Amino acid sequence: MASEVAEEWAQGTFKLNPNDEDIHTANERRLKELIGETAGKLHTGRSRNDQVVTDLRLWMRQTCSTLSNLLWELIRTMVDRAEAECDVLFPGYTHLQRAQPIRWSHWILSHAVALTRDSERLLEVRKRIDVLPLGSGAIAGNPLGVDRELLRAELSFRAITLNSMDATSERDFVAEFLFWASLCMTHLSRMAEDLILYGTKEFSFVQLSDAYSTGSSLMPQKKNPDSLELIRSKAGRVFGRCAGLLMTLKGLPSTYNKDLQEDKEAVFEVSDTMSAVLQVATGVISTLQIHRENMGQALSPDMLATDLAYYLVRKGMPFRQAHEASGKAVFMAETKGVALNQLSLQELQTISPLFLSDVNRVWDYRHSVEQYGALGGTARSSIDWQICQVRALLRAQQA
Amino acid sequence: MASEVAEEWAQGTFKLNPNDEDIHTANERRLKELIGETAGKLHTGRSRNDQVVTDLRLWMRQTCSTLSNLLWELIRTMVDRAEAECDVLFPGYTHLQRAQPIRWSHWILSHAVALTRDSERLLEVRKRIDVLPLGSGAIAGNPLGVDRELLRAELSFRAITLNSMDATSERDFVAEFLFWASLCMTHLSRMAEDLILYGTKEFSFVQLSDAYSTGSSLMPQKKNPDSLELIRSKAGRVFGRCAGLLMTLKGLPSTYNKDLQEDKEAVFEVSDTMSAVLQVATGVISTLQIHRENMGQALSPDMLATDLAYYLVRKGMPFRQAHEASGKAVFMAETKGVALNQLSLQELQTISPLFLSDVNRVWDYRHSVEQYGALGGTARSSIDWQICQVRALLRAQQA
Amino acid sequence: MASEVAEEWAQGTFKLNPNDEDIHTANERRLKELIGETAGKLHTGRSRNDQVVTDLRLWMRQTCSTLSNLLWELIRTMVDRAEAECDVLFPGYTHLQRAQPIRWSHWILSHAVALTRDSERLLEVRKRIDVLPLGSGAIAGNPLGVDRELLRAELSFRAITLNSMDATSERDFVAEFLFWASLCMTHLSRMAEDLILYGTKEFSFVQLSDAYSTGSSLMPQKKNPDSLELIRSKAGRVFGRCAGLLMTLKGLPSTYNKDLQEDKEAVFEVSDTMSAVLQVATGVISTLQIHRENMGQALSPDMLATDLAYYLVRKGMPFRQAHEASGKAVFMAETKGVALNQLSLQELQTISPLFLSDVNRVWDYRHSVEQYGALGGTARSSIDWQICQVRALLRAQQA
Amino acid sequence: MASEVAEEWAQGTFKLNPNDEDIHTANERRLKELIGETAGKLHTGRSRNDQVVTDLRLWMRQTCSTLSNLLWELIRTMVDRAEAECDVLFPGYTHLQRAQPIRWSHWILSHAVALTRDSERLLEVRKRIDVLPLGSGAIAGNPLGVDRELLRAELSFRAITLNSMDATSERDFVAEFLFWASLCMTHLSRMAEDLILYGTKEFSFVQLSDAYSTGSSLMPQKKNPDSLELIRSKAGRVFGRCAGLLMTLKGLPSTYNKDLQEDKEAVFEVSDTMSAVLQVATGVISTLQIHRENMGQALSPDMLATDLAYYLVRKGMPFRQAHEASGKAVFMAETKGVALNQLSLQELQTISPLFLSDVNRVWDYRHSVEQYGALGGTARSSIDWQICQVRALLRAQQA
Repeated sequence: MASEVAEEWAQGTFKLNPNDEDIHTANERRLKELIGETAGKLHTGRSRNDQVVTDLRLWMRQTCSTLSNLLWELIRTMVDRAEAECDVLFPGYTHLQRAQPIRWSHWILSHAVALTRDSERLLEVRKRIDVLPLGSGAIAGNPLGVDRELLRAELSFRAITLNSMDATSERDFVAEFLFWASLCMTHLSRMAEDLILYGTKEFSFVQLSDAYSTGSSLMPQKKNPDSLELIRSKAGRVFGRCAGLLMTLKGLPSTYNKDLQEDKEAVFEVSDTMSAVLQVATGVISTLQIHRENMGQALSPDMLATDLAYYLVRKGMPFRQAHEASGKAVFMAETKGVALNQLSLQELQTISPLFLSDVNRVWDYRHSVEQYGALGGTARSSIDWQICQVRALLRAQQA
Repeated sequence: MASEVAEEWAQGTFKLNPNDEDIHTANERRLKELIGETAGKLHTGRSRNDQVVTDLRLWMRQTCSTLSNLLWELIRTMVDRAEAECDVLFPGYTHLQRAQPIRWSHWILSHAVALTRDSERLLEVRKRIDVLPLGSGAIAGNPLGVDRELLRAELSFRAITLNSMDATSERDFVAEFLFWASLCMTHLSRMAEDLILYGTKEFSFVQLSDAYSTGSSLMPQKKNPDSLELIRSKAGRVFGRCAGLLMTLKGLPSTYNKDLQEDKEAVFEVSDTMSAVLQVATGVISTLQIHRENMGQALSPDMLATDLAYYLVRKGMPFRQAHEASGKAVFMAETKGVALNQLSLQELQTISPLFLSDVNRVWDYRHSVEQYGALGGTARSSIDWQICQVRALLRAQQA
Repeated sequence: MASEVAEEWAQGTFKLNPNDEDIHTANERRLKELIGETAGKLHTGRSRNDQVVTDLRLWMRQTCSTLSNLLWELIRTMVDRAEAECDVLFPGYTHLQRAQPIRWSHWILSHAVALTRDSERLLEVRKRIDVLPLGSGAIAGNPLGVDRELLRAELSFRAITLNSMDATSERDFVAEFLFWASLCMTHLSRMAEDLILYGTKEFSFVQLSDAYSTGSSLMPQKKNPDSLELIRSKAGRVFGRCAGLLMTLKGLPSTYNKDLQEDKEAVFEVSDTMSAVLQVATGVISTLQIHRENMGQALSPDMLATDLAYYLVRKGMPFRQAHEASGKAVFMAETKGVALNQLSLQELQTISPLFLSDVNRVWDYRHSVEQYGALGGTARSSIDWQICQVRALLRAQQA
Repeated sequence: MASEVAEEWAQGTFKLNPNDEDIHTANERRLKELIGETAGKLHTGRSRNDQVVTDLRLWMRQTCSTLSNLLWELIRTMVDRAEAECDVLFPGYTHLQRAQPIRWSHWILSHAVALTRDSERLLEVRKRIDVLPLGSGAIAGNPLGVDRELLRAELSFRAITLNSMDATSERDFVAEFLFWASLCMTHLSRMAEDLILYGTKEFSFVQLSDAYSTGSSLMPQKKNPDSLELIRSKAGRVFGRCAGLLMTLKGLPSTYNKDLQEDKEAVFEVSDTMSAVLQVATGVISTLQIHRENMGQALSPDMLATDLAYYLVRKGMPFRQAHEASGKAVFMAETKGVALNQLSLQELQTISPLFLSDVNRVWDYRHSVEQYGALGGTARSSIDWQICQVRALLRAQQA
């Protein structure tokens, strides 16, 4: 008969009654209509305090799985793109100042790698959600010797809670989930910020597809990156929910207090937001156009001054001296009003006799990035390694 | 010679020079004084961006271990106390209203169990701290083919970072640490709140030792629970650091920006606070006096109305009916102006014939708590089980 | 014809069209149906950027007035109660330890006075909301020489914004409103905490009316203070919205960005919450029962030790010496195992010859509170003064 | 003799004693050394609870004045610069996309105007700080009939607190100050973000002076905007302190609890930060170089499409139709592959006969900005008006 009630819910034919206090009493009332007084046994050894937190854990366990999948989908989209566009170079920035030539894939992967940590953390949060409080009663436990291990097995939980007072009133798993979302949004807000910048007229590295931007008939060249701005802004909203819950919890006397009721709206809102944001981010990345030519033109010889120093280091000069020698070359070029790569070999040799004709290779941007072959660097081989690593992580987490 | 520099630091004889930009250039300068130009090789393939985050990870790895130990010490102290005072009963509260008799140990363990989750989380945070970024350079990686796996092994890190851009600018491990501390402080703030209440004249369940409270010669009975108030208040301060860092990170362009410099003061302050708070909490718990008599006197028969219902459930009545029957008994007692346990058997039998002379056992508080024998409940056997479980967790985590 | 459109809105007969982008285009579309192409003039010199923020300010201006009224109603209810129950004494606490006898009205007024600051602040926030941005266009201003002072007068704003770029993108007034609500909620959370404590079995000073608490047929003496717990918990939620908005604003490039769209949901939710919370608080205060006898019985002679010292100060002894002398009396009473007021005059005179038979008045609690006649203290005259002051403030703010 | 103690403090000759509990007992102890037992009268009618909050208010009152001056100095610097560089045009952005030509001064003033609100708010905060709690005792008030109005006059406070329980435990003025700083930092973080962007190679509108940026001998063209990044980052730190305090206050029982001790470090740190940040911002603005030529070259005819529509509006066409007509011109230019201003009059007339030869003026950027003459717009007259308004505000506030 319980399955009949379930069926009514599934069919949408279950009729709520104004006197039903909550979902639990509604089910018991309906069961009583079907089978009589025996339905009164349903609540035996249960309490709203342990039921409500069991419900929330069931719901969040499912949500975490859904969000995990969406996150994996985003990471996969990024890795695919990193693989496909591995040969595109553009400037790497620090302090928003052009620093060194890097691969566009290296940039994509820098954000994908951050998201793999979110993915790992989400699994840890899910692990702590996946613990069954049922059988804790209102506070003191269950007085009828219920077999909580059996309940656990039937509801497929990983473990049971250890202490009934704690079980009915701790909301760590909610706080953790909200913080997980906050940190993940921080990552997405940084990626959004980068892409908003790269999509300005001034950078002109990328262009959002029409589906993810808002144009104007009057200014067709103006593509407002609404999707990215919304992603960036949601970082605040999501964190606000995390901050709100922690403040609600702070200083609360132990066991159940009505204050805890604040948990659910926070979870529902943040889940919806994360689901939307992850899908929008995936859409943005998969439809983004890149302007390879602009990316290439943004590279300039002055970004290779460090490489010039490393040229000398490879010839045996200690780094500090090499750094100084390269600085002299930069100064010489500036003084002469030419680009760094236009200094003649003779001119360079006045700075150090170690400069030979092979110095020309320094000015090749592709050669430059290939130097960074140590694991994690921007060389082709390292990009391939990163892609492999991230893919292996995804496989491991999905297992 | 590097070991000679190390020795100088250890001896406190290392002399800083006003021109030293940071610890790294100071070491290189000193090495140069000792061995000449070759010292200029020290910085080869390094950047302040990867060095500074390596330093921070080294420091935090150590800090996590220290805090883990302090947390374990606190949990152990609580578990020992729970074991020693297992026979003390007092009221369990929900909504700060007296609800059911529970064991004092059950209350202690409810907080200890919360702290075991903090302990588990701290190990996870430590795991993500224990990843080596060295060899990431300023942004693009290391151009000299450094063997990062070798560096990892030498510095005993668990893994290496995957992407140089991410490695030099992600501060997830800092945010996670600050959130770990915030959630842990939330637990401690709730325990502090309970103890402050239990220490009021009105509750009179516990008394802080003089070392952890402030008295007054004029009002010797007034023991201001300063230690607990400070614990409770620090929850705000620690969370403030977490909030501050997340706001700093939000919307930041990728790679290193000077904004990230905010990370260290937050980490140092929160580490110091956590260290102090955990030790104070351990001191409070280990020196706390309890007033068993007051605890016992705070129990009253009306807290057993639920038990009365369960008496009938055990005789076969569905819970809803039993609940109603017990309600009638409560009403009858109120009407007659007597305590619930003073209703005669005859009177109870007017409500249900299932009441027999063994109903007397219901009014025994020790018998009451023993009913809650399902795992996690307040019965003696469950308390023992909880103690075993927590001890096993501690052993597993320390392994 | 514009009034015809307004009429349709008022009547609820306005039909939205799926192609209407927002409320502004819907109105223009409808007007065009009524009067033809001339409706195309409606948007002249306007932009969504200045319209949307004008709308929000109009809405919030009204909301602030509504909330002001609700706040005043709460304060008035508290002041009325303070006046009516001026003769009730009970313990004043510091650190939750009984400190000195005070008037119950003094406690009520302590919270009412805090709320008058919220009231004052709300008027200041409203003042800054009441500034008209219309005529700022999208960013550069209005190109058709619109008379913004005329617009201001017609829409009854206090002033016009000074700079079009700032006007369309600043959300200070939203942040201020959210912070106003956060601080006000902090006050209400502290009052709620006090009342939750005073309503415990242990304190038994107050009892919530049934409308504001949840009982149980099984445990009729257990009154869960749901209303107060919800008030306390909302402090977190409201602050979360404030934190979220500030994080969204942080580091945003100037002028309008889509991120700002987060403002409205925050404002709507917080307005609804404040409206509900203020009304619930008013209901709680106006229906609260107090247990005068319990309040009186909670006073004890040891709370008068400070008064004993002041007795000596009034006889000319420097405070430090008087403090010491009183401490000796406390010690003597403790040693003899009697209450402080049971020491005989002879015994007291062994401590100081300044003790005379009039020392008996010290032990009268009503006499005790009357000593605190300096403005702001707990004497009857000061309570009357406080009531006058708060009432005068209310009148001034309502003017 | 009190003045002798004051003198010792001023001279730095006051010797602290390890037994001095705090500044108050130290002064009393010293006075006793100088004048004997009469010094014991010093603490008469006082309590640490009212003294400590009086001290804090005295300190913060002074700090607010200092910060007001620094804020005014910054605003003045900005206004002076806006006046001096009024003729520089550059692109105004929305969504970081080039939108319309504006005056550089208009941008400066948009941030200066935001800061005037901070200035106004700081005066309001100061007003609420400037209220004297002395004479409130520990909780119940002053028992010796101290004349609090006299104390107020002597210490030059604006008013006295109304209720002793509230006076000793409310920290609204601290919370308000921290929020004031948080909102002000939000403004500065947005200005910093703009300047960081404008200082990139890609924008190249501004260049920080060497004193406020960090260069590199290897990459002299790379100017890391450290000063601006630190300003941006401090927004997080300051807000963190505000969040921390509110969480500490939430749910605290009324009157003094040790938790309140957290207030002072927050205030001191935030005051120091604000003082430094305001001075750095003033330095950045006053030494910033602008690249007028780059600013001018960033303007392009497509930014004038809205102006083209307004041209038709001025000829009598309803705005919606004019908007459409301008859209057609944009489309025609795109189709023909020419800039919008290169369409011939004949071509334009195929779209609307209202286009006449005076359409040429539309393409003049200086003419464009001059259209925005309504108050608050980017026309010269409006800039002058804004400057006057801000200067008048400064004068009014300083009065």
